[in-house]
Amino acid sequence: MGRVVVNITASLDGYVAGPSPTLEEPLGKNGEWLHEWITVTDSWREQHGLEGGESNPDSEVVKESVASAGAYVMGRKMFSGGSGPWEDDPRSTGWWGDEPPFHVPVFVLTHHAREPMEMEGGTTFSFVTDGVESAVEHAQAAAGDRDVSIAGGAATVQQALAAGLVDELNLHVAPILLGAGTRLFGEDADPVRLEATRVLASPSATHLRFDVGS
Amino acid sequence: MGRVVVNITASLDGYVAGPSPTLEEPLGKNGEWLHEWITVTDSWREQHGLEGGESNPDSEVVKESVASAGAYVMGRKMFSGGSGPWEDDPRSTGWWGDEPPFHVPVFVLTHHAREPMEMEGGTTFSFVTDGVESAVEHAQAAAGDRDVSIAGGAATVQQALAAGLVDELNLHVAPILLGAGTRLFGEDADPVRLEATRVLASPSATHLRFDVGS
Repeated sequence: MGRVVVNITASLDGYVAGPSPTLEEPLGKNGEWLHEWITVTDSWREQHGLEGGESNPDSEVVKESVASAGAYVMGRKMFSGGSGPWEDDPRSTGWWGDEPPFHVPVFVLTHHAREPMEMEGGTTFSFVTDGVESAVEHAQAAAGDRDVSIAGGAATVQQALAAGLVDELNLHVAPILLGAGTRLFGEDADPVRLEATRVLASPSATHLRFDVGS
Repeated sequence: MGRVVVNITASLDGYVAGPSPTLEEPLGKNGEWLHEWITVTDSWREQHGLEGGESNPDSEVVKESVASAGAYVMGRKMFSGGSGPWEDDPRSTGWWGDEPPFHVPVFVLTHHAREPMEMEGGTTFSFVTDGVESAVEHAQAAAGDRDVSIAGGAATVQQALAAGLVDELNLHVAPILLGAGTRLFGEDADPVRLEATRVLASPSATHLRFDVGS
């Protein structure tokens, strides 16, 4: 069975989303700065059917993450594109367009049961209403030998970490200050000492890998 | 004239000190975890008159920082060893012992005027009561062609950054979560996009350098 890995980008001040998310800015004010290191890479562009882009340590990190993911787990806000009146709309087809960039099964954590949605290009959205543990189990069954990637947002990652479901945390630190927003590690978290098992860096991001299993 | 540089270590969740500082734990609960990457290096041990220690990217970073500093600026809590009833005691000789590890002039920001203290090994503590700008000016005069190093804590660094006095920010990110404490960048800070001009990393710390001078 594959591992359960988290990939998430945080700002230098610890935010994984900016404040006041809207439909236009689902990651909150300036939240898109977080992912600039990704969207300029050739591997991200290839995943999205585009040509060109930069080839650097960041693009290797993206490539590796895409290649190893056999299924994804995400929160409903990440599926629907942020908080708002639309997020629980059962007619919503999500934020990701007709051909989402995942190309594998995606399990969406939600309180609202609905039928799976088969999209173009191999992505299927399935909706899981009985918690993160169940979502990860479904994803592991779907992923086979490949990894389950917990894609975000912060609440989903926090739940998976707290439930002890995560084998590996890949924290990408972007050299930005968002000043406010959603923190990955919350307030008044328990102190933890981690040991990085891999560190890769470019001027655009620092990629820290931690083994958090057992 | 030398540059004004900041060297400070933050946890992955953005804290530069843990909660509830005491005389025994001036950096707060678990705050000493922040500096483990420093204290194991051969260059830190040499600065403190000790032998042995590790030679790695971290030790190069420490060595470079020590060699380039012609004077330091620090807050009074860093001088006295944390918050508490003793911190404004004019008889206090500080936290650093008879032979502090600086070996150059140190300018301490305080509200309480007192005479300079000449310590063993070349460190002189001078007390500046008219603000961070004045402290940096005094330090620049003392440092000559070498750099002024703003050593902390968070409040002093924040004041220096806000006053536009800093040329270079060296942020050392330790792979720990403190969960609570003092944040370097505070709450509701302005969003800022930075460009790292140098990134060095080891499993114990990631060293990010930013040019912040206009």
